[in-house]
Amino acid sequence: MADQYAQTSAGVEPPMLPSLRWDEPPEGPVVVLLDQRRLPAEEAELVCTDVPALVVAIRTLAVRGAPLLGIAGAYGVALAAVRGFDVEDAAERLAGARPTAVNLGYGVRRARDAFRAAVDQGADPKAAAAAALAEARRLHREDARASADMAAFGLTLLDELLPGGGHRVLTHCNTGALVSGGEGTAFAVARAAHRAGRLRRLWVDETRPLLQGARLTAYEAARCGMPYTLLTDNAAGSLFAAGEVDAVLIGADRITADGSVANKVGSYPLAVLAKYHHVPFVVVAPTTTIDLDTPDGAAIEVEQRPGQEVTEVTAPQVVVGAEQGVGIPVAPLGTQAYNPAFDVTPPELVTAIVTERGVLSPVTGGGLAELCAGRAGR
Amino acid sequence: MADQYAQTSAGVEPPMLPSLRWDEPPEGPVVVLLDQRRLPAEEAELVCTDVPALVVAIRTLAVRGAPLLGIAGAYGVALAAVRGFDVEDAAERLAGARPTAVNLGYGVRRARDAFRAAVDQGADPKAAAAAALAEARRLHREDARASADMAAFGLTLLDELLPGGGHRVLTHCNTGALVSGGEGTAFAVARAAHRAGRLRRLWVDETRPLLQGARLTAYEAARCGMPYTLLTDNAAGSLFAAGEVDAVLIGADRITADGSVANKVGSYPLAVLAKYHHVPFVVVAPTTTIDLDTPDGAAIEVEQRPGQEVTEVTAPQVVVGAEQGVGIPVAPLGTQAYNPAFDVTPPELVTAIVTERGVLSPVTGGGLAELCAGRAGR
Repeated sequence: MADQYAQTSAGVEPPMLPSLRWDEPPEGPVVVLLDQRRLPAEEAELVCTDVPALVVAIRTLAVRGAPLLGIAGAYGVALAAVRGFDVEDAAERLAGARPTAVNLGYGVRRARDAFRAAVDQGADPKAAAAAALAEARRLHREDARASADMAAFGLTLLDELLPGGGHRVLTHCNTGALVSGGEGTAFAVARAAHRAGRLRRLWVDETRPLLQGARLTAYEAARCGMPYTLLTDNAAGSLFAAGEVDAVLIGADRITADGSVANKVGSYPLAVLAKYHHVPFVVVAPTTTIDLDTPDGAAIEVEQRPGQEVTEVTAPQVVVGAEQGVGIPVAPLGTQAYNPAFDVTPPELVTAIVTERGVLSPVTGGGLAELCAGRAGR
Repeated sequence: MADQYAQTSAGVEPPMLPSLRWDEPPEGPVVVLLDQRRLPAEEAELVCTDVPALVVAIRTLAVRGAPLLGIAGAYGVALAAVRGFDVEDAAERLAGARPTAVNLGYGVRRARDAFRAAVDQGADPKAAAAAALAEARRLHREDARASADMAAFGLTLLDELLPGGGHRVLTHCNTGALVSGGEGTAFAVARAAHRAGRLRRLWVDETRPLLQGARLTAYEAARCGMPYTLLTDNAAGSLFAAGEVDAVLIGADRITADGSVANKVGSYPLAVLAKYHHVPFVVVAPTTTIDLDTPDGAAIEVEQRPGQEVTEVTAPQVVVGAEQGVGIPVAPLGTQAYNPAFDVTPPELVTAIVTERGVLSPVTGGGLAELCAGRAGR
């Protein structure tokens, strides 16, 4: 089979719309999102003029992915501040939009604290709003830099773990430029391997129910000219059994103090398969994803999403509404569904955590605390 | 959450169209199939007047499931014989329609051998055709009886493995009345547990890419009033981790001489998860699924199906064509897909094999050979 999109690593990478940008048209400032619900069918931007619109965008996954949720939260606070709305109320609504990704609350707090500090120092509302916006922009830049650093650390780790080269990497969900101010987390490592000419194959789990792998990771891999192959989540077992997977690379939505990793549902079964087949299972996430206040996996609130994401299939052209059923039913009417958005992988199944501050392996609570010491304010 | 379809075990089970029947309208004999591609959206029968039509029905999964494929193969040979076509040619086309399920070839051989034997004994074509049809009917009846016996043996085994009662059973793909002359294989065991008031929950894997769990098992479970919940295949890991699965029950498409089990893709990862969580992994299949001529898992030909089953989503109302793309694209155009229809679970991950002749545990080559000794002609 030829790879229709595979290019040499020197291939030109076509530009992509930014996943999130701040804009200031004459009508007033806005947060502009690349609407991820419509990909890959169309590249459409969604303009949020206020916090309630942004909250809906977060809940319905127009914007998603742990690092990008942090950035969106920070810009959301700035948007409320610049437009003169109640900043504390906005921060609360944004932080509560989705429960599992720790970055969302982190980004919200960063911008809100900057706003509060400015007010405390006697700034007028306009100057305090400017401080919130500056903080959101700082977080955005930090995240881009963190992406680049994770990619470099991750590639070095891959080369060490797999000295033979020609890496065949399995990934789950979407962790690329669409979730980040930069090139992403796990996907950024695979992309670095591709640039270095050492990515033999990117195995892309489709990632049911919302198909972020099929729709988004395949989209990014195709645009980057990477050799990739799509599979149903349950076909990964066959690849492991056939010795076709050299490493698993995934992102994270929350890493607790003991090293438990909450990530897209389907990550944990991959960790068990990887363990059984002696394949490295590597988590790539910025230190902003580490939540030392949550002691362990059992303490993580896993978001339960509507059953219709499972009982109906929705074409990517159709906007997925959290509240309404707009898909084509595939199960009998009335079917009850179990639909956790995430699962939790215990530290003993994680080979390494790659952050922008270095690689932690083995994964221990002490190591995580050390990694986090001195990172930007919480 | 209330179970919209859950009934007490004494509930009336509504009649279902037979998954396959032989009919003799004035225009000539036909094989009539309940078209499984259209379920659960509509219950439509597909009338096959000749073997090429039946081969297309098999390839496109209008009729599917190991035991039922055997029955379809036998009736297909009878159809060719009764209508005066070349029986040897028909047998060859039918046996080659799909490669992995051993029952298809077995059913074809049973009817063809009956035809040959009649011819060898001097029967005229009409009498030889009648012999083939009688053999197909015999196989059909045997399979119904085997279902009932497997259900009884399987329920006894469940009760032994789980003395606490209140079984929470996870199943994959579809193994009920739709795949059998009777109530099926793994699903028949769950149904027996439900009748006995001992099924607390049937966890139904949706079974990508063709969603046989969501479309067919949910349909059968709803009709039987069983307490069931649908999940994406990759959410099973969360259920295991939460201790919500007491046993896994699956069917099989081919069991090799060493006890390796080929079944719907996604079975092997469940076996690994079951092993990791110390949960019994039970295979339910008639001895016609045991293939002593294939030495081990590595020798099984796993059917690779079209990539568009993964890259496109097809509504059940739309007939899934093996040759054409009729679905809604969910991945970028040109995306290459890995789409094995089955995977192989080695015997060391299988707790028990339940057949109509009894239960084998542990699973060994010697035990399988003993189980098969003296079964109806191959």
